[in-house]
Formats: sequence, C-alpha cells, structure tokens
Amino acid sequence: MPSRVYLDWNATTPLRPEVRAAMLAAWDLIGNPSSVHAEGREARRLVEDARAALAAAVGGLPRNVIFTSAGTEANGLALSPGLRGPSGGPMERLLVSAVEHASVLAGGRFAADRVGQIRVTRSGVIDLGDLEAQLRDGPPALVSIMAANNETGALQPVAEAARLIHAAGGLLHVDAIQALGKTPFNINEVGADLATFSAHKIGGPKGVGALVVTEGLTGLEPVLRGGGQELSRRAGTENVAGIAGFGAAVKAALQTLPEDTGRIATLRNRLENGIRSIAGATVFSEEVERLPNTVLFTAPGLKAETAVIGFDLEGVAVSSGSACSSGKVQPSHVLSAMGYDPAVAQGAVRLSLGWSTEPEDINRALEAWRKLGNTLLRA
Amino acid sequence: MPSRVYLDWNATTPLRPEVRAAMLAAWDLIGNPSSVHAEGREARRLVEDARAALAAAVGGLPRNVIFTSAGTEANGLALSPGLRGPSGGPMERLLVSAVEHASVLAGGRFAADRVGQIRVTRSGVIDLGDLEAQLRDGPPALVSIMAANNETGALQPVAEAARLIHAAGGLLHVDAIQALGKTPFNINEVGADLATFSAHKIGGPKGVGALVVTEGLTGLEPVLRGGGQELSRRAGTENVAGIAGFGAAVKAALQTLPEDTGRIATLRNRLENGIRSIAGATVFSEEVERLPNTVLFTAPGLKAETAVIGFDLEGVAVSSGSACSSGKVQPSHVLSAMGYDPAVAQGAVRLSLGWSTEPEDINRALEAWRKLGNTLLRA
Repeated sequence: MPSRVYLDWNATTPLRPEVRAAMLAAWDLIGNPSSVHAEGREARRLVEDARAALAAAVGGLPRNVIFTSAGTEANGLALSPGLRGPSGGPMERLLVSAVEHASVLAGGRFAADRVGQIRVTRSGVIDLGDLEAQLRDGPPALVSIMAANNETGALQPVAEAARLIHAAGGLLHVDAIQALGKTPFNINEVGADLATFSAHKIGGPKGVGALVVTEGLTGLEPVLRGGGQELSRRAGTENVAGIAGFGAAVKAALQTLPEDTGRIATLRNRLENGIRSIAGATVFSEEVERLPNTVLFTAPGLKAETAVIGFDLEGVAVSSGSACSSGKVQPSHVLSAMGYDPAVAQGAVRLSLGWSTEPEDINRALEAWRKLGNTLLRA
Repeated sequence: MPSRVYLDWNATTPLRPEVRAAMLAAWDLIGNPSSVHAEGREARRLVEDARAALAAAVGGLPRNVIFTSAGTEANGLALSPGLRGPSGGPMERLLVSAVEHASVLAGGRFAADRVGQIRVTRSGVIDLGDLEAQLRDGPPALVSIMAANNETGALQPVAEAARLIHAAGGLLHVDAIQALGKTPFNINEVGADLATFSAHKIGGPKGVGALVVTEGLTGLEPVLRGGGQELSRRAGTENVAGIAGFGAAVKAALQTLPEDTGRIATLRNRLENGIRSIAGATVFSEEVERLPNTVLFTAPGLKAETAVIGFDLEGVAVSSGSACSSGKVQPSHVLSAMGYDPAVAQGAVRLSLGWSTEPEDINRALEAWRKLGNTLLRA
C-alpha cells in the first residue's frame, strides 16, 4: 500500500524532530514550575526558555508572552473589553473581519451587540475603506484581523489597518496563527498591540498557544483565574512539555522559513496549475498575496464533503476548509463573506503543504484529483 | 551524590510509563481530531478512548466528559451561573468552602457579590451546619466543595453535603482533583452534579483536566468559544497526546489504587510519626479522615519558606502547601480558614507521597528533618 499523502497542514502539522526531543527531555522533569524546589525550578527554566524563544521570534518581550492551551484560548484572552486604548479608556466595541477564525468571531468577552464585522473583498482581503468608515462611526474599538486566512491563505493588510486603528484611538489584535513560520511576522513591524500564535500549526504539539502583547498594554482581563501563573494573566499549572515543544518548534520554524518558503511555493504552484488545467477549477484569492502553502479551490458541481472523502480513499488527506467545527463539513463562512453563494461555499477544497511535502505528494494529489474530478464533477 | 527524594506529589507527579507510551503513540498520529480524513479519525479515536476511560473511572457517561487544559480551567467551566437546578431556574449564587483551591475561590463566572464562603472546622472539614444555614438563607445555590484538600489531605463530607444541597434546590460541584487515584471517587455515589479532575496529579501530563457532569445537566456556559469541539462546550483543538496520556493515567491509577493506598499510608504514617517524635511538631487534620499520602505539619518557630529551601538543599523536594501561586511562599489560606493565626499559616510544610515513594525516601526525609529541625527551630 502506498504511504498516505498529507495535504492538511493548515489544520495541524506533524511534530518536528526537535519538538519531540524537547518534550521528551521535559517529561523527565517532575516539578511543577510554581514549586520552589529544584524540580520546580528546572521546570520553570524550560517554560522561560520557550517564552524567550517566542518573544525573540515575533518581536515582543518575554514578560509579555502569555502561554495558553491553544490559539482559541489565546484569541479569547485577547478579546478583552478592559483593554486600555491610547487615550486611557477601555474598548467599548470590537470589530472583527468577516473571515476570522470561529474563536474570534465568537467575540471574546464583548457583548454580542458590541461586536461588528468588517467586510472583505471578493478576493478575501479586508476592505480598508469599510474599516475606516466603521472606526469613524463610534467610540474607540478593539479590532481583530488575522495576518493570513486559514482557508484561502490570503494575507491581510494588517500594518495599514494598524495605522488607521491607532489614528482612531483603537487597538489591533492580530491572529497570526496561520502566518507564523510561513511568512515573516513581527508585532512591531505590523504595529499590532496583541497577537496570537499556536504551536500545532508549526510542528509543535496540540494544546499550546500564546498571546503576545506590546510593552505597557494594560487592562487585559484573564479568562482563567486562580493561581498567579503567567504574571496573573492566566491561571493553571503550565503545560511544561507542551510549552517546551512550542519553543523548539518556533526556533526550528523560523530557522527554516526562508528555504521552506521557496520550495513549498514552487510545489504549491505546480499543484495549483495542475488542478486548474484539469477540470476548469477556480482557485480562491489567487489574485492577491497569499501564504506560500495554501490552495483553496472549487469546480462546478464539486461538493466538498464527497471530495474530502474521495481524496481520503485515494490516500490523500485534504480539507474542506477549517477543521475547527467538530468534523462536520459546513459551508465556508470565509467564502460566504467573500460574496460566493452557498453552493460554492459548500464546494471548496483546501490543500495545504508543509516542510515535508515532496514532489511525489503533488503527483499523487493531482492523480487523485484527475480521477475524482471526472467522477465528482459528472455527478 | 545521592538521588533526590521527591515528596511533593500533591503538586505534580512523575509521568507513569503507561502514559509515556500512550503519548508517544499519539505523537505519530498527525491529524486534527476535527478533520474528516483518516488521520483526523485516528486522532479522534484516541480522544474518545480517553473519554470512555475517565467516564468509566468516575461513574459518568462519556458524552458528559469535557476535556480542558487543566483543573483550573475545568473548575472555571464548572462554576457557571447558567446551570439549571432541579426546579429549572439558574443558579443565583455560589457557595464555596473556605479551603477550596484558588481557581474555585476565584468564583468562575459568578459576580463577586454572589459568592459566599462556607466555614470549615479547626480540623479543616466543612461545617455542614453552616452549609445548611446558608442554603436556607437565600435562592438556590451552586455549591463547590473539594473531595479532598490539597494541603491537609482532609476528606470532605461531600455525599452528606450533596443531600443538603439537593434538598435546597441547589447543585453540587466537587473538585476531585486531589482525590482521583488516591481514594475511591464516583460522582453517582457522592451525588455530585459536576466534578473536576486533573491529569498531572495521577501520573498524567501537565496541561490536561476534565469536567464531568451528570446526565441531563443543562445550562453550562462555555469559557472557551469558537469551534464545536467537546459538543460545543469547550472550543479549541484538542490536546490529543495529553488527553491520551490522561486516559492512560486514569486506567493505571485506578488499577493500582487498592495496593498503592495501603503501602503509601504505611509510609506516610511512619513519616508522620517520625516528624512528630523529633521536634514536637503538629500534624494538621490528623484527627479526621485524610488522603493516605499527605502530611501537613508545623513546629513552633518553623518558617515554611526556609524549611522548603532547607529540605531542598538536603535533596528532598517538599512544599509549603499549594504550588499554584507563582513560586511565592504565602500564608496558607487553608490554615487561616481553619482558624490558625498567620504565624502558623506561614509555618506549614507539606510532604506528599506517591506510588514510587520508597522506605528509603522516608528515611532520608526524616534525616533531613532531624538536621533542619535543630537549626530552623532554634533560629
């Protein structure tokens, strides 16, 4: 039996060898990082090393890194109405782009009637004119915009958005979960006040994320309360091995980013061209800057659910978009926000590549698509 | 150099071999459990196996097990004002025992003025008369009482409390984090409506906990929102390896519970008698039923901070109580609640044993105490 082809790297990635090594080492440390004894101090050191690694990678200070249990928790923590803006007042509303992850669309601790959505273009890029108009129309806002979309891969104009938001007395949260390790990202260059990250998208373990805030930001309200961990911003015994794995993943991902990017983009382009040439498929967001590893496509008559199962039976793991909704294939809210009708939003397939994707994987995926396309599109 | 003696098992435990094996196997599964493809389904199966294991161990149904990132998150999730009582109304207030963990004392989603405390006796056991009086004095309450105290080890009369609470139209949450694997615990026998557990107290990994609720309980409000994981009660990609490790830890802990209990209690009693005989020390809660593995003691003039460091220098890892407060040695809120004055509350040392504790560890700890007691108590 031929080995499986894994093209669902935007959902989660294999563990990097460096990550396994770091976590195995952490397993041998018994201590609770809050304990005073030697065992506790050794565990503490691992957590602080990882904190420094993430801070260095994304341009923050270690003390401003808050480890969480995942990107979802980090996003929920970031969306805190108590945050103080440049003028010293709290954030009276939240604006989120219409293509954000479900954990951002949920609005954090903002009341539902305090959450507005910013439109995106047909290409899946945030409409800066709409952002500007909405900023003008009300009190200072916390704005949440992702650096790169998890379904289309479209990069968002977060630096331009930051300037508009700050000029209006607001704050910017950037969900950089898909961007980290795939495209350069630095909170200072972007001008983000808060940014969120997740380990399992870059070869780290599932169950670890982080929120990084800029120096001097105040008013963040904890989601998990109790012990004084994470400078009292996130209670709960730290996932020491997971955090150590996150640190190792960050180091490895950033180190290989330049070479991975070119190689992966070349493979992605070949995959994309192959898909287009076979069944008249459409690639979403192709006309804008995207992550180098992502293709979201459809073809007339394609149904995502059957396509994902069809690819799976051919040994190719692909996705119908985000994997974050309990195994059900639902119409993509991203494509709906881009103005596509429900039939299209239910017919999109995502292929996402990673560092161990090989030319042979692309061949196998195209072969599967040739076979499936004929059947699926005829039906 | 002699090996270290680890007597801080109530803070965290070493990983069990079965847990390491389960997590290593999980590392090889790439998939996100929410993904439809084979890789996703394999990851899902691990999560569901662990869910079934925990449910079987504590008497719940698998669908009523909600995995979280730790006991702290599980406690925060449990303390939900939207929970519906037997009469169908929400919980208008929260009563917590004064010796609860910090994550329970924080009150979850209840407003601070809706949280009351239940007194404990000088022995650290909840005062059922006070509970009864407070239940009478107001609308239906959610009540949170731990099964066993993390500092003293004192077992709480949770089954008796359940009867009083239910008779008053309220609900009972039991923090069973210290009880699991150390003393039999079953939500049905206790009559708990909600119970919380943590992996790293029973040989599982740090960063995994669970809330188990009884069948038919409604109104639980999620803390983490976004994706539809955990039947929409807890969003975020599952910590697959950690959850698999939790499942393995539960199976192993429950299997060895009967033999561990007797062996550990014998060692604990020897340790306790040794401590008492040397410097006129007091053991807290000794007159009530306790976990078999815990000794909390003090002696006139003892300062916990210097004692913990002193033991550490002698190669023995002990604690001054809970390890959940950022490495600082603070007066024990548990001893304060038991009516001890601050000098005593700052002078308590906790020794907690586990399955790999050997007679030689007890000898070494007593030797250290003999040496330290002389110095520390003279000072």
